[in-house]
Amino acid sequence: MFRVIFGVDTPAGKAFDVALIGSILFSMLVVLLDSVVAIEQRFHSELVLLEWIFTGLFTVEFLARLLCVSKPRRYVFSLFGLVDLLALLPSYLSLMFAGTQALMVIRALRLLRIFRVFHLTPYIAEADVLMDALRDSRNKIVIFVTFMLSLATIMGALMYWIEGAQAGFTSIPRSMYWAIVTMTTVGYGDIAPQSVPGQFLAGALMILGYGIIAVPTGIVSAQMVASSRPLPESTLACHGCGRFGHDTDAQYCKFCGGGL
Amino acid sequence: MFRVIFGVDTPAGKAFDVALIGSILFSMLVVLLDSVVAIEQRFHSELVLLEWIFTGLFTVEFLARLLCVSKPRRYVFSLFGLVDLLALLPSYLSLMFAGTQALMVIRALRLLRIFRVFHLTPYIAEADVLMDALRDSRNKIVIFVTFMLSLATIMGALMYWIEGAQAGFTSIPRSMYWAIVTMTTVGYGDIAPQSVPGQFLAGALMILGYGIIAVPTGIVSAQMVASSRPLPESTLACHGCGRFGHDTDAQYCKFCGGGL
Amino acid sequence: MFRVIFGVDTPAGKAFDVALIGSILFSMLVVLLDSVVAIEQRFHSELVLLEWIFTGLFTVEFLARLLCVSKPRRYVFSLFGLVDLLALLPSYLSLMFAGTQALMVIRALRLLRIFRVFHLTPYIAEADVLMDALRDSRNKIVIFVTFMLSLATIMGALMYWIEGAQAGFTSIPRSMYWAIVTMTTVGYGDIAPQSVPGQFLAGALMILGYGIIAVPTGIVSAQMVASSRPLPESTLACHGCGRFGHDTDAQYCKFCGGGL
Amino acid sequence: MFRVIFGVDTPAGKAFDVALIGSILFSMLVVLLDSVVAIEQRFHSELVLLEWIFTGLFTVEFLARLLCVSKPRRYVFSLFGLVDLLALLPSYLSLMFAGTQALMVIRALRLLRIFRVFHLTPYIAEADVLMDALRDSRNKIVIFVTFMLSLATIMGALMYWIEGAQAGFTSIPRSMYWAIVTMTTVGYGDIAPQSVPGQFLAGALMILGYGIIAVPTGIVSAQMVASSRPLPESTLACHGCGRFGHDTDAQYCKFCGGGL
Repeated sequence: MFRVIFGVDTPAGKAFDVALIGSILFSMLVVLLDSVVAIEQRFHSELVLLEWIFTGLFTVEFLARLLCVSKPRRYVFSLFGLVDLLALLPSYLSLMFAGTQALMVIRALRLLRIFRVFHLTPYIAEADVLMDALRDSRNKIVIFVTFMLSLATIMGALMYWIEGAQAGFTSIPRSMYWAIVTMTTVGYGDIAPQSVPGQFLAGALMILGYGIIAVPTGIVSAQMVASSRPLPESTLACHGCGRFGHDTDAQYCKFCGGGL
Repeated sequence: MFRVIFGVDTPAGKAFDVALIGSILFSMLVVLLDSVVAIEQRFHSELVLLEWIFTGLFTVEFLARLLCVSKPRRYVFSLFGLVDLLALLPSYLSLMFAGTQALMVIRALRLLRIFRVFHLTPYIAEADVLMDALRDSRNKIVIFVTFMLSLATIMGALMYWIEGAQAGFTSIPRSMYWAIVTMTTVGYGDIAPQSVPGQFLAGALMILGYGIIAVPTGIVSAQMVASSRPLPESTLACHGCGRFGHDTDAQYCKFCGGGL
Repeated sequence: MFRVIFGVDTPAGKAFDVALIGSILFSMLVVLLDSVVAIEQRFHSELVLLEWIFTGLFTVEFLARLLCVSKPRRYVFSLFGLVDLLALLPSYLSLMFAGTQALMVIRALRLLRIFRVFHLTPYIAEADVLMDALRDSRNKIVIFVTFMLSLATIMGALMYWIEGAQAGFTSIPRSMYWAIVTMTTVGYGDIAPQSVPGQFLAGALMILGYGIIAVPTGIVSAQMVASSRPLPESTLACHGCGRFGHDTDAQYCKFCGGGL
Repeated sequence: MFRVIFGVDTPAGKAFDVALIGSILFSMLVVLLDSVVAIEQRFHSELVLLEWIFTGLFTVEFLARLLCVSKPRRYVFSLFGLVDLLALLPSYLSLMFAGTQALMVIRALRLLRIFRVFHLTPYIAEADVLMDALRDSRNKIVIFVTFMLSLATIMGALMYWIEGAQAGFTSIPRSMYWAIVTMTTVGYGDIAPQSVPGQFLAGALMILGYGIIAVPTGIVSAQMVASSRPLPESTLACHGCGRFGHDTDAQYCKFCGGGL
């Protein structure tokens, strides 16, 4: 049973995983459709039924996982265990605290389960490369976000003073929101400078924000260039000297000259 | 005839290709102009005539191609063959199912034909480099898009709960649309958060989206750096087989095993 | 006189260049202010006077340049010569064809003169590196722009069919404009999809556009990594063997062992 | 006392620094909340009191710093000294020039103090790498900004002529503001082209702006790649002096001239 639920190397394990991903995606769709008023009014009972079917299935799956592993406690407090549990809780909570809007959003956490897809695929190696590049850049990212927030605060305060409430800059926090909208080049346009000095300052902030993006991009690029081996290395060891690191097109060991 | 239609190394072949690209671009212009109400009303008959002239020309060209190649069946099911066929179909279909709006968009597929331009130019080598970089990054791109969609779903669900229908977040799918608009820094502003916690969350999503762009950029940059400068290669040729391309730390030829 | 006007290595030449840049920037400011209705109405005569003073100064400077160089004809048809001439023409043309709005924009070409600033500064070496990186990436850029325009055409045709005139997609060209606005993440919001399939397609286009930016960035990054020598190379040649390419911290020639 | 205020290597110094950062962040929050009308009206006296408590604390801290250092004059004119002084000034100035709105924004300079956080953390090494990469790219950045502004001026002048006042392009400076909003992909949508040639030009500017971002990104990426991996270095040590760091093509030691 462990092989079927946790493994991916047997046909049964693969089928189980594919069925699980399908169920998760379908249960996500039910949550999404349930939030559309027109659909919810017409298919209310069907959607509720489907939700409970999925809740039942996922509960059985969760219990099966707990039975399989030798240390169930440790599984519950692992990342995937916690997500599994959090995905089940809102449905059961809705029985006790009926009809509350707040439950909707807790149910959305179930969608996190899609990350488990990575657990099942060869993509995990690629995801690890991405994660490593991000982890190595962690300190630089902290500085970068701090700088962005400082700049947003100062520019927000300046614009609050220059433009004032009649242009939509009603407070420094709201002006900071505008600064972030502008700096990240999102540009909703719900708040926009009206005066000439305000537009001048906004223009400067835009060029700054447009250019600053080069910094995190440069950081990640450099990390990836550094971590990515330019050529895929052969996993073959030389029979003669036992050394690794041969190119994939190599026929003879480059260290001792023996055949590979 | 094969040399003229498929080749580019003879003057006749070159002239044919240039004329073909011109016809494709001109027929595209006719489709575009036909959709402008003011122009369509004034020049209706001329535009219809031009469309049928181009349809005729392209039909002749398609048949000629089929005659030229030794395995016509294989050509039809190649990428360019399929595009050629699809570009002709809508015109003929419009005879049977007259006046349907839906045909308009099938006609737009004819525009795909512009990619055949690459078929005719030295740019194809460059396009291959681009395609290789994208293909090598395929797995990373799948993870990236999955992550973007997961984030859009979770943020959409959160904003649907925080902002609600009166701010335009009428359903989770519509909130997901807002999340994608914001995360990709497009920022139409047709839906925008009104409350303080909503603006706070939106600000966080903007900075996230602004920073995340560094990831695909870093991926492609690293791939391109890797594919443009593979490895610091030794300039030594093997004494035995005379081949180049050895690593700088190689002591024996990786192709014949002779000492370097 | 040649040394003063064309040279930058004498105090007089430097002073001339600084004065010239100042005049160009100031004459630019006059053009800009002249377009603001409130300012133009109050200071009409002063602005006209200033414009004619600058036109006079630049005419004298242009004639002096022609006198200095031995081949005036060749200078006139060089890049800077043409820009100089084009910057003077609109003022004189306005005498013959008085009061025409169109002259305004020809006058704006005078602003191109700011590029001559590069002519005068050590920045030209850096600009050359940028230009080289762009020139080497030329083919890739052509493919990229063609791809963008093709995608805009196809997406524009699709959205024209899906959304139709009532959502602002009144013709395929206008829908292509929307596609470019969306794909480049500009996102004015003057045209935005209203229907569910339209928003779905728009979301896909946004993620595509958000990701595609990685391609030109990767191209330029790879070119710059390739063209930028990681370490500054010494300009000293070896006394023994006369070869270049030594590191800046090298004390002995790495090819013959002789002292540097 | 010097160790506590300036040092971070003793428990007392660390505690002082953490307390200081907390105070700075809390005093920032007071300034932000003070600008929200609803909060300011309810908690006016509390906010004023808190501001003066923080002003008092920071004054004591500033005087303590002056007492600690042997050259107080030099400290005052250092970056952090100036920021400390500027953060204190607005509060005291508000006593003399009471009730002026302008003081609000000078108070915002106090927020710059958050940069001192870098002074206290291991992040400073990372910040130095970022700063070095930016400093090395300084010349390229100047050219880039000049190019952006020139392009904005020319495009602004063109759009002012094409679109004119009724589409919102009321003057060249305002059109330049639009050009910057468009080129940086911010896209507020408060000013947008209405005519066909205007939308055509705007589309070109968007693709240009979308692509140009590759240039600063490429610059910073290349700088970071260069600073993180200098050169493929030979792993051979010199037999004579035993030093490493030779190039892969070196035959003689660059430090002592002995054969490798």
